[in-house]
Order: sequence, then structure tokens, then C-alpha cells
Amino acid sequence: MEDYGRFLALLVSALLVGFVSVIFSLVWVFHYREGLSWDGGPREFNWHPVLVITGFVFIQGIAIIVYRLPWTWKCSKLLMKFIHAGLNTIAMILAIVSMVAVFEYHNARNIPNMYSLHSWIGLTAVIFYSFQLFLGFAVFLLPFAPVPLRAALMPIHVYSGLTVFATVIATALMGITEKLIFSLKNPAYSASPPEATFVNCLGLLLVIFGALILWMASRSHWKRPPEENAKVLQPIGGTPEVTEAESTMTDGSNADKSDLRISSEAARKQTLKLDEAGQRSTM
Amino acid sequence: MEDYGRFLALLVSALLVGFVSVIFSLVWVFHYREGLSWDGGPREFNWHPVLVITGFVFIQGIAIIVYRLPWTWKCSKLLMKFIHAGLNTIAMILAIVSMVAVFEYHNARNIPNMYSLHSWIGLTAVIFYSFQLFLGFAVFLLPFAPVPLRAALMPIHVYSGLTVFATVIATALMGITEKLIFSLKNPAYSASPPEATFVNCLGLLLVIFGALILWMASRSHWKRPPEENAKVLQPIGGTPEVTEAESTMTDGSNADKSDLRISSEAARKQTLKLDEAGQRSTM
Repeated sequence: MEDYGRFLALLVSALLVGFVSVIFSLVWVFHYREGLSWDGGPREFNWHPVLVITGFVFIQGIAIIVYRLPWTWKCSKLLMKFIHAGLNTIAMILAIVSMVAVFEYHNARNIPNMYSLHSWIGLTAVIFYSFQLFLGFAVFLLPFAPVPLRAALMPIHVYSGLTVFATVIATALMGITEKLIFSLKNPAYSASPPEATFVNCLGLLLVIFGALILWMASRSHWKRPPEENAKVLQPIGGTPEVTEAESTMTDGSNADKSDLRISSEAARKQTLKLDEAGQRSTM
Repeated sequence: MEDYGRFLALLVSALLVGFVSVIFSLVWVFHYREGLSWDGGPREFNWHPVLVITGFVFIQGIAIIVYRLPWTWKCSKLLMKFIHAGLNTIAMILAIVSMVAVFEYHNARNIPNMYSLHSWIGLTAVIFYSFQLFLGFAVFLLPFAPVPLRAALMPIHVYSGLTVFATVIATALMGITEKLIFSLKNPAYSASPPEATFVNCLGLLLVIFGALILWMASRSHWKRPPEENAKVLQPIGGTPEVTEAESTMTDGSNADKSDLRISSEAARKQTLKLDEAGQRSTM
């Protein structure tokens, strides 16, 4: 891998910042707030920031860059796709549970649901994320989708994955803003009590984490290299023209090389066109 | 241009969504709030959302994709760099004036400055944006910087430009959240009065605008094609080895082709390496 040292430094920084963010969310709810429980009260609400930051930010961030880790390049692409999809599934479950915590808290206190911009964009992000996961699973992980469909959807998969990730961080920043305004009364948020400064720092950490992940995900020379020992994955009911059609529930990095190996000459020519599409998919 | 129709549809959508966002900000301050003036009161504060959305979001968004407009490809790269830098300068001035409006409003009312996460990240974004503009001007627009420096900085210029743009939108969403919570009292934000719903929709428009701009900016096949009739721009005090070193205050699209034409063979070989760097700069 080119620039291995720099990649490693960025990876360690991202993991550290992400991990410290999770710790900050725990310190916030245990030291400054009421702690955690599942009782319809403020302690149930507190699951919301903890689960969002742990799952929807930290784990999603790792899922995005998991193909770039050079020591996973000896693993099969299929295994890496399962890991990518698995991490995203865990993140989605945590995001959904975090929303349930808020709805139950709101309902127990007769606070309206879904009135704020935070809730509008947050719910939209969860819906898009679930749809992205479902589509990624159906198109890139299962062996049914034809190669042209995979090639056409890959750039969209990459772009929407990174956009949803950035949107989730923006939504978390809105949530922090809301929570600090609502919960800090005496002294108020504007008086900058220790909790306000601490949680503002958490917000900064989330931005830095997002910036690191997006940098690593958008350097094309840190892509996973194409696979050599490809095995046949034949679409069910289709002709065996695709000798390697390992799907790419990936960051789009290798749609151009390892995923689109066609055996017939006509199909090979088509692949050249698809290769271009794959190249373009790299953000 | 490949996919010209799709590009045009996206461009029209982005311009429309951006323009409607500016109109929404004006309707917000004139219909739901006190209007605009420069008197230290709420009407001075109202310049803040209007100028941020007009300059820091809409104009910055256009500045990002200005190289991609196919009808500008007959214009010289240098002219396009001036337009790119000019639009960003206007955006920066409007962002700074928008901050002055808030500081003056806060000071007149004895409201503390710089306590919120919105203000922390917003000020950081303005500082990064100013630094990015200064560095872009010095390295890519002025003819002094050596070609290897330009090639090394281009990927960072592109990445930080897009990241600051996304961060500005996230900051605007936090600002909307703050303002609605603080200003809607009877009925409160949670009661979803018409102003709350209207301004939430403005927030959604900003996210859609950002998503459209980032999609257009990250499609490498919509890059400005390399220039053929390059003219000599010799670094002052340097040897005339660079036959075309038009700097690239750009989206990074052409660092690989039109910017790095070296006349000597040794320099040409170096360019091949730089070409790779340029290719990588494309997000």
C-alpha cells in the first residue's frame, strides 16, 4: 500500500477520535445527566445520544473504511462484504433502538414527536440508511443482480453512503444543540457551564471523526486491490457468462476491477464500458 | 459532455433549490420575523440567516461546480479560476458580515458570544474557509508556486473545500434549530406553529442543495476537459520549464491534464508522477 504510514496514522486517529466520542457520550449521560435505564424517564432518553454516537456514527464510520484496511486484503471480498453489511446492520439496529428510546420518553411525558428539524432529518437519514442497506444487500451481496445493474448502482451506493454518514453527523450536532438548550437551565447553555463546554467538545470530535473517515474513503490510491483468484458466482437462472461477479457491497473502490470479469468477448467489451462507470464511482 | 441532459437537470434542480432556499430565508425574516435593518436589534440579527444562506451556502455551492458548466469550457482556465475565487470571496465577505450582525446583536442585548456548538463550528468553518481561499489564491491563482507544490496541495484543496461546504450546511441546520427554539415561545417549537414547519422545510432544502452540489462535484466524467491551446505562464524568478502552469484554483479536476505541461523530458517524467497525484485529487 502506498503511503501506508500516513494511512495508519489517519486510521489510528479516526479510531481514537471515534472511541473518545463514545466515551464522551457516556461521561455526558453518567456524570452530567441521570445515567441509563429503560424506564420512560430521562435515563431512557439518554440511550439516544449514546447509541447514535456508538452505532450510527462510530460503527458506520468503520463500516465505510473497512475495505481500505490493508491487512484485510488477503481475506476474500465476500467475507469483507459480510463484515461491511454486518457492521452497517449493527449500526442500523442501534439507530432504531435509539429512536425508540426518544419516542417512549416523549410519549411518557406528553412531549410531541417529530416536530424538530433534528427529528425530520434524523428519521429521513434512518429511512435512507435502511433502504441503502436493503438495496446493497439485494444488489451487491446476493448473487442475483446482473453485472450492468451492479455497475450502474455502485456510484450511487458509494455517494449515498457517504452522504447519509455526513447527514447523520449533522443531525447529531443538531441533537446536541437541542439537548443542551432544553436541559441546561440554571446555569443556562449561554452561561457556558462545564457540561456545555464538554458536550460542545463532543460535537467537535464528531466533526473531526467524520472528516477523517471521509478523507480515507475518498483517496482512490488506498482502494483494496483487485482480486486475482476469483471464483465463479453465477446468477441464479442466468447464463454463466460472469466468471467473477462477486458483488460489491463496498465503497465502490473495486467495481472497476475485481467485480466485473466477463468470460465472453462481447461481454468483455461491455465490461470496458462498465469499468468506466466503476472508475467514476470513486468519491 | 457525457450525460449532458442529466447534468443539466441536476444543475437546474440545484439552482432552483438554492434559489428557493434564499427566498425562504427572506420570507422567514420578513413574514415571520421582524424584517431587516442594521440597528443592533432582532432585525440586525436577521441578516445572519439571510447572508449565510445566500453567500455561505448558495454562492459557495455555485463556486464549487463552476468548472463543471460545459458552456464555460471555451473560456480560459485562468478566467474560470478568477470566477471561482471571486464567488468564494463574495461568499466569505457575506459570511463575515453575517457574523458581525450576530455579534452586534448579542453585544447590544448582553447575550454571551461563542458559547454554542453552532458558534464554535461556524467560526471554525469561516476561519478554514478564509485560509482555504488565501492558500488557493497564493498557490493556484498566482504564478509563483512550483508545480509539485500545486499537485501536492490540489487533493487537499478539493477535499477541504467540499468538507467546509458540508460543515457550513450542518452549522446552518444547528443555527435554525437554535433560532426556532429561542424565538418560538407561544406557541413553542414543539407545538409546530407554521413558522416552525416552514423553517424546517428550509433546513431540508439546504440538505438537498448540499447533496446535489456534492453529487455534481464528485462525478469525474463531468470534469472540465484539458486545455489544448495552453499559453506560457512562467513562475517569476524560475526557469521557463513549465510551458503551461496555469494554476488550478479548481475542483481538482484538471490538475492531471491541463495544468502540468512540462517542456523538458526530465520534467515530463516528473509530471507523470504528478498526474497520478492529480487523478487522485478527484473526489
